[in-house]
Amino acid sequence: MSRIAFVGLGNMGGPMAANLLKAGHELTVYDLSAAAVDAAVKAGAESADSLAAVVSGAEYVITMLPAGKHVEAVYLGDEGVLNAVADGTLLIDSSTIAPETSQKVAKAATAKGLSFMDAPVSGGVGGAQAGTLTFICGGEADVFQRASSILRNMGKNIFHAGPHGAGQVAKICNNMLLSILMTGTCEALALGVKNGLDPAVLSEIMKQSSGGNWALNVYNPWPGVMDNVPASRNYQGGFLVDLMNKDLGLAFDNAVKNQATIPMGSLARNLFQLHAQQGKGGLDFSSIQQLFSNLEE
Amino acid sequence: MSRIAFVGLGNMGGPMAANLLKAGHELTVYDLSAAAVDAAVKAGAESADSLAAVVSGAEYVITMLPAGKHVEAVYLGDEGVLNAVADGTLLIDSSTIAPETSQKVAKAATAKGLSFMDAPVSGGVGGAQAGTLTFICGGEADVFQRASSILRNMGKNIFHAGPHGAGQVAKICNNMLLSILMTGTCEALALGVKNGLDPAVLSEIMKQSSGGNWALNVYNPWPGVMDNVPASRNYQGGFLVDLMNKDLGLAFDNAVKNQATIPMGSLARNLFQLHAQQGKGGLDFSSIQQLFSNLEE
Amino acid sequence: MSRIAFVGLGNMGGPMAANLLKAGHELTVYDLSAAAVDAAVKAGAESADSLAAVVSGAEYVITMLPAGKHVEAVYLGDEGVLNAVADGTLLIDSSTIAPETSQKVAKAATAKGLSFMDAPVSGGVGGAQAGTLTFICGGEADVFQRASSILRNMGKNIFHAGPHGAGQVAKICNNMLLSILMTGTCEALALGVKNGLDPAVLSEIMKQSSGGNWALNVYNPWPGVMDNVPASRNYQGGFLVDLMNKDLGLAFDNAVKNQATIPMGSLARNLFQLHAQQGKGGLDFSSIQQLFSNLEE
Amino acid sequence: MSRIAFVGLGNMGGPMAANLLKAGHELTVYDLSAAAVDAAVKAGAESADSLAAVVSGAEYVITMLPAGKHVEAVYLGDEGVLNAVADGTLLIDSSTIAPETSQKVAKAATAKGLSFMDAPVSGGVGGAQAGTLTFICGGEADVFQRASSILRNMGKNIFHAGPHGAGQVAKICNNMLLSILMTGTCEALALGVKNGLDPAVLSEIMKQSSGGNWALNVYNPWPGVMDNVPASRNYQGGFLVDLMNKDLGLAFDNAVKNQATIPMGSLARNLFQLHAQQGKGGLDFSSIQQLFSNLEE
Repeated sequence: MSRIAFVGLGNMGGPMAANLLKAGHELTVYDLSAAAVDAAVKAGAESADSLAAVVSGAEYVITMLPAGKHVEAVYLGDEGVLNAVADGTLLIDSSTIAPETSQKVAKAATAKGLSFMDAPVSGGVGGAQAGTLTFICGGEADVFQRASSILRNMGKNIFHAGPHGAGQVAKICNNMLLSILMTGTCEALALGVKNGLDPAVLSEIMKQSSGGNWALNVYNPWPGVMDNVPASRNYQGGFLVDLMNKDLGLAFDNAVKNQATIPMGSLARNLFQLHAQQGKGGLDFSSIQQLFSNLEE
Repeated sequence: MSRIAFVGLGNMGGPMAANLLKAGHELTVYDLSAAAVDAAVKAGAESADSLAAVVSGAEYVITMLPAGKHVEAVYLGDEGVLNAVADGTLLIDSSTIAPETSQKVAKAATAKGLSFMDAPVSGGVGGAQAGTLTFICGGEADVFQRASSILRNMGKNIFHAGPHGAGQVAKICNNMLLSILMTGTCEALALGVKNGLDPAVLSEIMKQSSGGNWALNVYNPWPGVMDNVPASRNYQGGFLVDLMNKDLGLAFDNAVKNQATIPMGSLARNLFQLHAQQGKGGLDFSSIQQLFSNLEE
Repeated sequence: MSRIAFVGLGNMGGPMAANLLKAGHELTVYDLSAAAVDAAVKAGAESADSLAAVVSGAEYVITMLPAGKHVEAVYLGDEGVLNAVADGTLLIDSSTIAPETSQKVAKAATAKGLSFMDAPVSGGVGGAQAGTLTFICGGEADVFQRASSILRNMGKNIFHAGPHGAGQVAKICNNMLLSILMTGTCEALALGVKNGLDPAVLSEIMKQSSGGNWALNVYNPWPGVMDNVPASRNYQGGFLVDLMNKDLGLAFDNAVKNQATIPMGSLARNLFQLHAQQGKGGLDFSSIQQLFSNLEE
Repeated sequence: MSRIAFVGLGNMGGPMAANLLKAGHELTVYDLSAAAVDAAVKAGAESADSLAAVVSGAEYVITMLPAGKHVEAVYLGDEGVLNAVADGTLLIDSSTIAPETSQKVAKAATAKGLSFMDAPVSGGVGGAQAGTLTFICGGEADVFQRASSILRNMGKNIFHAGPHGAGQVAKICNNMLLSILMTGTCEALALGVKNGLDPAVLSEIMKQSSGGNWALNVYNPWPGVMDNVPASRNYQGGFLVDLMNKDLGLAFDNAVKNQATIPMGSLARNLFQLHAQQGKGGLDFSSIQQLFSNLEE
């Protein structure tokens, strides 16, 4: 078992930390929210009151933060992780941020002889709780190997996407594609229903045909077609429209920096943004179905 | 075994007829192309030189024609099928056409006491040859039951989408969604590659994540990632850009008639049309990858 | 002065007929609405109770109908205009319909030795009332010359776009461009306002810069920036969203038939359709501003 | 006459400086390109070999730089303008950059008691040479007044868009709208031509109708319709596709930061990016016509 420092105990970080404790690791935690820290302490973690304290004696540092500016502050700040951590510690950032920010932190870590890996996740709060997250990692192969054993306590699929930042890139690409799949699926279902088709029948046909995709398989956006998905509980929970918009914002930034052409992703982003602007930012992202269909409520 | 009349022996109809012969049915065929008729005769069919002759004595009539106007002519013309066929014959049209045309023919057939079913297919020339087509059917339940035994000689999945025209609607919805999935997948791969990622690695990650879809599973659009797909043979064969555009034209028509909102499908249609305009209409539709990436050739 | 038969006294046809009466022409009118006929009779027209009667003795026939099917019925029906009208009569259809329908009627008219011209209008109910419509005509040059003197009593700009159907094509192109200009203008204003800019100041800057367009010049979509436009009266009156959608439907049909690429027009069509689906079909089309901005109401 | 320091003598800055000299001002210039400096010196300017030297004794500092990072370096660097300039100097930045960068420089300037204004331009190299640029300014009203007298020596229209950064915002909004107008105009012309219309006739009709816009008025994108525009000289010169893409990149960034919905602008950006990717980045932006039409060359 290992000594792990965990920074960032939000909706995702909290259950991830809990799974590390369940797996028997020694965990020290740090978060600005006293309530989040208390919950972790009750589950068996020790708390620390500074970044320097939390990383003291750790073999691994795992961070799960809302945005790039927090990652920069936590790692690169004067009293940040890089200035406090012992040689040989492995640093893993699971935040979803711009690849350049990951690369900047990686470069600073490397300059101090430390190993850093970006490891954003897919699978949402449900996956974090169940320990079935997907980790998409960027960094050197040996660091990926070393980190995998720990990540396996929190997730099911652990991918090595490439060098520093590649985890972020792959996550951005995947979530952009997801936004396209979901919007396209909603649009196709709405068209069928306008023609009088049964959404469940049409879903089944497309799922087994060339229209098959993740949304039809496990996350059907039409209310009542599938049990235990957000669409069947008024689009509550799941992966929020506002979070999809955050990820699509990263896709926009990346496409501008790389002069990439992303017409479908851009349109999906604008439809999700329009949806948020109409007051739906706090619903699950499959609620984009409402933009195409007048669903009874 | 049954007596079947088959009208339309093109790239799809030819191999479909061949599979009916292999299954032991008695087949009479009709086509304007002498070469197509000869091939069917060599495989064991009888030929007829008029629509009246081909349907004479048939228990089933199967038609596979390029567009709605041909279907109207074959069924509704003065010397067409409806005026020549015996009572009790089951009429199956596997052409991909507008739902309203299917409904018009169905109505005329019903008025004469005949049973008609629209049964467009998915699976392309490969599926037609292998007998693994998907049939998406519209019509009454008992007619669907009766037809299924015959369709099973040509296909693997036989779906009942709903009443007359519903087969066409479901096919239009599925292919619109397919155009979106494919374009989105190409766009995501191109973005990843612009960031330095390996297209095979990124494909694998997205396939197993929430970006998973039919294109990543069996029809990867990036050259060399998957064997035996059009992308790995210079986008030759497969499902042509021009045919995708034909189907997306049906989606446009349908959305206008039903006042449906199809932003993603419309954008995909325009990108495929742009691609065709740049001389790519005769390539497989996964060649839309070329619009996003400067692939070495 | 001339003897004119006028068929179709709706929101547009009614005031157009009134302007012909004001100009001193002898007018006979036909419409299914008794109220519309009464209003025209009060203004000095004679009424007729059949198409044959209304065109009897007319030098010009002018039709203003909702859609292509009405135009076909009125001209090509057994008791329609072409079977009733005297030789030498000039037929002018001001309905906005598909170019192929205009060409079909023109061909039938020509076969009977009659002259026909498509002459759809731009300018809305206001333009019809003020006699300032724009007529966009398709047909032969000499017919255009002959018709122009009459059209000038109802409109200000009379354009000859080309042969039969060209008037419809030009109208479709113009209105598609209009939908793009308006949506783009709303989007630019919304972006500026989100950044804290005054919509009136930004409108003025763009109007005098390379963003200048008809919407900024005479039809500003932001409430209160311009007097006497629909935006300043809660988007009442003007050119309805539903009518813009009808015209954009014609653009879709045309693009499919001609294999044309219209990504911007398609997106605008889908945004207007989305807007209509949210209950805004009866508002002026500049209300598309609401899709981008949370305007106080 | 005033003493003016000018930093950045590129395609735009060079002719702008020349016009200040013609107007009789005393000009000191700074640029990394010796050739650019030589040309200015020949036209009557003095040269300086550092930022500190160029601003010494200046009443006004005008900067014209490629991107935000250069503006930050020139103003905020240790040896930058803010650390070298005398009290009371008025600082004007005509670069097109992100509004936040303008605001950051403005804030730093204000902290030192200096007046700063963002004043990006519209009108291109032609406007810079002819002294007919449009300046779109952000800053305090009295600073705008003071600056206007100088700007009038280089431009015709001088707008005050609002507070610091507002000039950049208005420029971004205008150029996004311009990209939409141009793409929409090209698409409408292509659709008409596919239907057999004459592009010059259609242009004239739309220009005088509700499709009227800046492109149809002064910058027709169809070769040969208008003299003295890039379209009539193989799309050489003018406003390059690559520069339009740079400005649309700023629009993307801004929309993400402000959670604004920009579907039309996003689509235009992706079409321009696609066009650049096909090797057209160095052509005038009206060459986007080529994406819709197979123009004979």
